Amino acid sequence: MAGPRLIEYKEASAEVRAIFDDIMATRQTDWINNFWKALARDPLSLKRTWESIKQIMAPGALAPLVKEMIYLAVSVTNQCGYCIASHTAAARKKGMTDAMLAELMAVVGMANETNRLAAGYQVEVDDQFK
Amino acid sequence: MAGPRLIEYKEASAEVRAIFDDIMATRQTDWINNFWKALARDPLSLKRTWESIKQIMAPGALAPLVKEMIYLAVSVTNQCGYCIASHTAAARKKGMTDAMLAELMAVVGMANETNRLAAGYQVEVDDQFK
Amino acid sequence: MAGPRLIEYKEASAEVRAIFDDIMATRQTDWINNFWKALARDPLSLKRTWESIKQIMAPGALAPLVKEMIYLAVSVTNQCGYCIASHTAAARKKGMTDAMLAELMAVVGMANETNRLAAGYQVEVDDQFK
Amino acid sequence: MAGPRLIEYKEASAEVRAIFDDIMATRQTDWINNFWKALARDPLSLKRTWESIKQIMAPGALAPLVKEMIYLAVSVTNQCGYCIASHTAAARKKGMTDAMLAELMAVVGMANETNRLAAGYQVEVDDQFK
Amino acid sequence: MAGPRLIEYKEASAEVRAIFDDIMATRQTDWINNFWKALARDPLSLKRTWESIKQIMAPGALAPLVKEMIYLAVSVTNQCGYCIASHTAAARKKGMTDAMLAELMAVVGMANETNRLAAGYQVEVDDQFK
Amino acid sequence: MAGPRLIEYKEASAEVRAIFDDIMATRQTDWINNFWKALARDPLSLKRTWESIKQIMAPGALAPLVKEMIYLAVSVTNQCGYCIASHTAAARKKGMTDAMLAELMAVVGMANETNRLAAGYQVEVDDQFK
Repeated sequence: MAGPRLIEYKEASAEVRAIFDDIMATRQTDWINNFWKALARDPLSLKRTWESIKQIMAPGALAPLVKEMIYLAVSVTNQCGYCIASHTAAARKKGMTDAMLAELMAVVGMANETNRLAAGYQVEVDDQFK
Repeated sequence: MAGPRLIEYKEASAEVRAIFDDIMATRQTDWINNFWKALARDPLSLKRTWESIKQIMAPGALAPLVKEMIYLAVSVTNQCGYCIASHTAAARKKGMTDAMLAELMAVVGMANETNRLAAGYQVEVDDQFK
Repeated sequence: MAGPRLIEYKEASAEVRAIFDDIMATRQTDWINNFWKALARDPLSLKRTWESIKQIMAPGALAPLVKEMIYLAVSVTNQCGYCIASHTAAARKKGMTDAMLAELMAVVGMANETNRLAAGYQVEVDDQFK
Repeated sequence: MAGPRLIEYKEASAEVRAIFDDIMATRQTDWINNFWKALARDPLSLKRTWESIKQIMAPGALAPLVKEMIYLAVSVTNQCGYCIASHTAAARKKGMTDAMLAELMAVVGMANETNRLAAGYQVEVDDQFK
Repeated sequence: MAGPRLIEYKEASAEVRAIFDDIMATRQTDWINNFWKALARDPLSLKRTWESIKQIMAPGALAPLVKEMIYLAVSVTNQCGYCIASHTAAARKKGMTDAMLAELMAVVGMANETNRLAAGYQVEVDDQFK
Repeated sequence: MAGPRLIEYKEASAEVRAIFDDIMATRQTDWINNFWKALARDPLSLKRTWESIKQIMAPGALAPLVKEMIYLAVSVTNQCGYCIASHTAAARKKGMTDAMLAELMAVVGMANETNRLAAGYQVEVDDQFK
């Protein structure tokens, strides 16, 4: 097995099923996306990763939609195809409109541009920012 | 001149001063940070970059604070020291609390982690996300 | 020709064939993967790249499997699809088990996360690390 | 507070102290490095991050030194200054010699090079790797 | 709509058509590539991005082919599949030969390698470079 | 020794001195910059890296200044501080003017922006580019 293998619900162990159930309950969906099926090859990683995400993405000082858009912004910056597809869908589900996506993308693009201008011109941090 | 050189307001051309003035007026500050002073070496780049940022960061479908936090999330992902310092300060000024920063950082960290898990396990995009 | 073109063994020059032969002999395989066929468009690059890799990946202070896993960790971090597929296969061939892959992926994911936390919180290097 | 702030042991809450104690006990050291002091601003992130790292870096299918070197390889690829300094020190402590570091760096450099050659030449994944 | 949607010329607004017309006239082509059709979902982003690129890629102190090769070098470094395909084609059209592409790729690969060696060995900037 | 250590000419072995001499002769300088002094800790890496760079950066289908600017563009994209400083200096020495640097930086910034827009909008490669 050189490539990926997905663990489907029906073939999963009780331990993995319990996590799959929690994912579906938390997200109010009736299916599991491939990311979790791939992680399920290693139940310990599945458990740790899901529990971290569940804690991090829960409502808090930031609204869930804002968190999801930040997640998407990072995925776009890293150019992770799977992550862009899945987190665009997740943000849509949480209420991201076309106009919000367009603005998010504009900010992400601009930030990636000015990050290089700042580094390339070797700009020193202003005392006011320290 | 192998390194950076900053254009200070008092030595700037009228064209550059006009942009510096607009930056200060738009941001309601009385000083110009080093990024713009470095870009001012090339007035055309200064003008284009400022006008793009002014347009992109204006209130729209997303609130200015949300845009600023997305900008910061990208800068952290790219590990741009100058940009992290300046956009953390900008987000603070727009109302980012300690709790919001902590949640932003947690999301950015997690997204950078799962971006690699998705790519590393060669996970295929679910039909539901297409 | 805007895209890639692969040089097959049977159409290759004597110079390229000699390198292809060395690759197969060193790796104890009877086929050449696409990466080398693409590089063969420029025999000088093919030669330099192969000789560097041959030298670097040979047994030394680090075991070949450890080197291969480091190669994979970098490829996952850079999210290079081709490289992830080829170096996962190569590491498998050298003895990487499912458990080892799962641990490697967990470390890579965690490192990508904490790299951003360290940068994002602008953490200064401890004197003890200097 | 636009920049970082470190939570020192003596000013930490009982909850944070307990984690600091566990870090020192697990790593057999008598001091806490700045990364953890910065994370301690958000006790929940501190706890989650430490527990994840503790689990991931424990001996398993891969030896602790191998894991530490993979961590370092990722940090070098991402060019995270703090992380390179801290994980070089950690790997040294676990037994990484000068020769091992030199080989690790050579592999990391080469992987970063060939990742771009594979992507740049738009090389398709061989059927044998699927 | 979770994924992309392309705006074709015949369904475009007058505002978008005017930009499409300018892109074709400037580039002396009779078709629009998918990148612009995707951006056209947000006419403001389309306009701003096209005007910036038009200004930046025009002949100046650097020849258009040199600019196009720098664009390609960045795209290869970021491993952006779409961008590598489109900018390789654009550079070909402007005169990039097989030999030039091979040399560009060699430089990009080497730079990505030595960037990590410099960072990994924590090399300090020489006074002569400041 | 957790951090860097530089090998100075006077303490170098005959093997390392020969390479240092070749670097200075090829570049027509009378000093060695820190990058090479750091690599000299591992003479084999020093030799391999120098010979590769010497071959790659020699005049060919691309002029040395163009190659140097491509090297700089990659270093800016990767935000490698040392590399930006050293390759800006090298490009200056080969004739890069202020205007050329400004145009290079504008292209690098724009490419980093549009790379994310193309990935973020999940744009498919046009048939014409294949």
